[in-house]
Amino acid sequence: MALKFEILKKNGKTRLGILHTRHGDIHTPAFMPVGTCGTVKAMMPESVAATGAEILLGNTYHLMLRPGADLVEKMGGLHKFMNWDKPILTDSGGFQVMSLTGLRKLSEEGVTFRSHVDGKKFFLSPEESMKIQHKLDSNITMCLDECTPFPATYEQAQKSMQMSMRWARRSRDAFVDRDGYGIFGIQQGSIFKDLREESAEKLKAIGFDGYAIGGLAVGEGQEKMFEVLDYAPVSLPDDKPRYLMGVGRPDDIVGAVLRGVDMFDCVMPTRSGRTAQAFTRFGAINIKNARHREDPRPLEEGCDCPLCSHYSRAYIYHLQKCNEILAVMLLTWHNIRYYQRLMQGLREAIAKDTLEEFCNQFYADQAKGDIEEI
Amino acid sequence: MALKFEILKKNGKTRLGILHTRHGDIHTPAFMPVGTCGTVKAMMPESVAATGAEILLGNTYHLMLRPGADLVEKMGGLHKFMNWDKPILTDSGGFQVMSLTGLRKLSEEGVTFRSHVDGKKFFLSPEESMKIQHKLDSNITMCLDECTPFPATYEQAQKSMQMSMRWARRSRDAFVDRDGYGIFGIQQGSIFKDLREESAEKLKAIGFDGYAIGGLAVGEGQEKMFEVLDYAPVSLPDDKPRYLMGVGRPDDIVGAVLRGVDMFDCVMPTRSGRTAQAFTRFGAINIKNARHREDPRPLEEGCDCPLCSHYSRAYIYHLQKCNEILAVMLLTWHNIRYYQRLMQGLREAIAKDTLEEFCNQFYADQAKGDIEEI
Repeated sequence: MALKFEILKKNGKTRLGILHTRHGDIHTPAFMPVGTCGTVKAMMPESVAATGAEILLGNTYHLMLRPGADLVEKMGGLHKFMNWDKPILTDSGGFQVMSLTGLRKLSEEGVTFRSHVDGKKFFLSPEESMKIQHKLDSNITMCLDECTPFPATYEQAQKSMQMSMRWARRSRDAFVDRDGYGIFGIQQGSIFKDLREESAEKLKAIGFDGYAIGGLAVGEGQEKMFEVLDYAPVSLPDDKPRYLMGVGRPDDIVGAVLRGVDMFDCVMPTRSGRTAQAFTRFGAINIKNARHREDPRPLEEGCDCPLCSHYSRAYIYHLQKCNEILAVMLLTWHNIRYYQRLMQGLREAIAKDTLEEFCNQFYADQAKGDIEEI
Repeated sequence: MALKFEILKKNGKTRLGILHTRHGDIHTPAFMPVGTCGTVKAMMPESVAATGAEILLGNTYHLMLRPGADLVEKMGGLHKFMNWDKPILTDSGGFQVMSLTGLRKLSEEGVTFRSHVDGKKFFLSPEESMKIQHKLDSNITMCLDECTPFPATYEQAQKSMQMSMRWARRSRDAFVDRDGYGIFGIQQGSIFKDLREESAEKLKAIGFDGYAIGGLAVGEGQEKMFEVLDYAPVSLPDDKPRYLMGVGRPDDIVGAVLRGVDMFDCVMPTRSGRTAQAFTRFGAINIKNARHREDPRPLEEGCDCPLCSHYSRAYIYHLQKCNEILAVMLLTWHNIRYYQRLMQGLREAIAKDTLEEFCNQFYADQAKGDIEEI
């Protein structure tokens, strides 16, 4: 296989690992910040690396529209284009395209859709998605699939999953194997155990470098998601990385790691940074709240990000009040750093066999202090 | 006097100097980036320092409204509040208040005005402006004056200048002398030589740590501005720094340095960074121009800023096309760095007695290459 995954330690279902790629190693459990349009919004790539992030997610849909995969290829690939020399995972474009209600037409062959930017017509198929991700020079290519909407009837979920599995086969066939690059399959099946297991079997029969769990965090709620995660990850190969797509809040991540997931991505830390929301050890904070106006304390005591190291809550409150870009820059940095600190904490706890204590402390901390609803 | 100014070398009217303040030295000729609301827009303060900037300008008007001078004082002063430990100059608030047409009432005592943010009523007088700038802990306090609008009749300019001189006296009297802190007077007189000279005499009689040239760059054009600068700077004391307020474009600055000006501030590099405009050695560039879409070259060959070191024009074109904050961050950084490189170049040329060659090269470079109208 083209990507090597080492599992260093296990604790129950939880694993500590290293995924080796052409552009460097990813220590798992890992969180991938999202760089939709070839930039993690409001962050210099050096700053993203400084948070401890070892891999970014790029969005194929956005990049194929602007600036286009051919241009990125011409500029030496996405790493060089965006000045990020560490690993990059790209999604297939499917999730965004399927969300273009009214602007897309789905068939067995693929999806025809119109760009949300200028209305231009595009066609995305498993083969086309592989070609685009290849041009982007993505280290981890994702299969094109249909993210089954929630709720779905059993029949809808089955039909959708089975088409995704045929697309997985076509994706795998179209993918060009290279050393240090790999392709992940994506499990579907909604909240139905036998469909999840059928999907897992079909993916294993094809054979991938890693396996994603798709179709979750789409409105089913944490309780239902955890129910699925009680069986879905362990139905996937034990010796390959497992990636839960689009998840999530800190407690979603902790719960999923305990259930055997190794990789995550989510826009939550970056998007929240643009709406003055902060994630901290002591819960979420809405910095727009007037109670921060004269507060000389740092956002989160003990955090080593620039925001918490050098500024007061009063300052960040002031910045957001004035719509200053620096508010977005500092909050985004803090949020990504918080997520990376959480992953580092999880990895250390697995290494030291203190995962249970770590999680108890995590839940206790989150429950006290500054909790505000985001 | 509370601020020490050393002149190291002269070349014609041009001077090389060091202004010593409580928070560090400023090598002149110097350009001050503008940090209106307690942040240089879209820049981390560490990055501003990395460009070579040794002093920032803060806006009293904006800071007195939000977050308020009392809060800044309570948070330990503006340096600490905004995490900038180098010198800060604050304007008096007058310029912005006078621009609030319809919302302000001017009398000998001061100006009553309504906040553009929430309509709240404020009063600004020389004494009040000094008090606010003191609370902000500004290293260089500016007198409250009236920036005479352009055009003005001789009589209007005279009346306005004479009131500003009475306010200069009141400002000086209200200013609290401290070691490493100082106050600058502001010359007015529009484009009338005898009024400029009368203003200079009145300011000298009061005695300041430095002298600003106000009321220029208000629509009179470069030619008229240079006519005034042929006599205005040399009418001010030779042994004190001279500061041309609100100027300007690179060639404005070079022309003013040749006429004896030591300090500058302008929103041009930062504001242009937010509208995809770049200043370079080879003239101004509008990065929105479609000819940059597939251009693999750096914005400015030889520039050492992050934008020019790590990215293509194609990338920055792409970022601005997608309204990405990183476009603003990188362009602002480049523009401030360009201005600092220009000032460093001027200082080196004065030191090495190569000012004429430097200026010839500057004009030749600006005239060739990538010039586009901003």
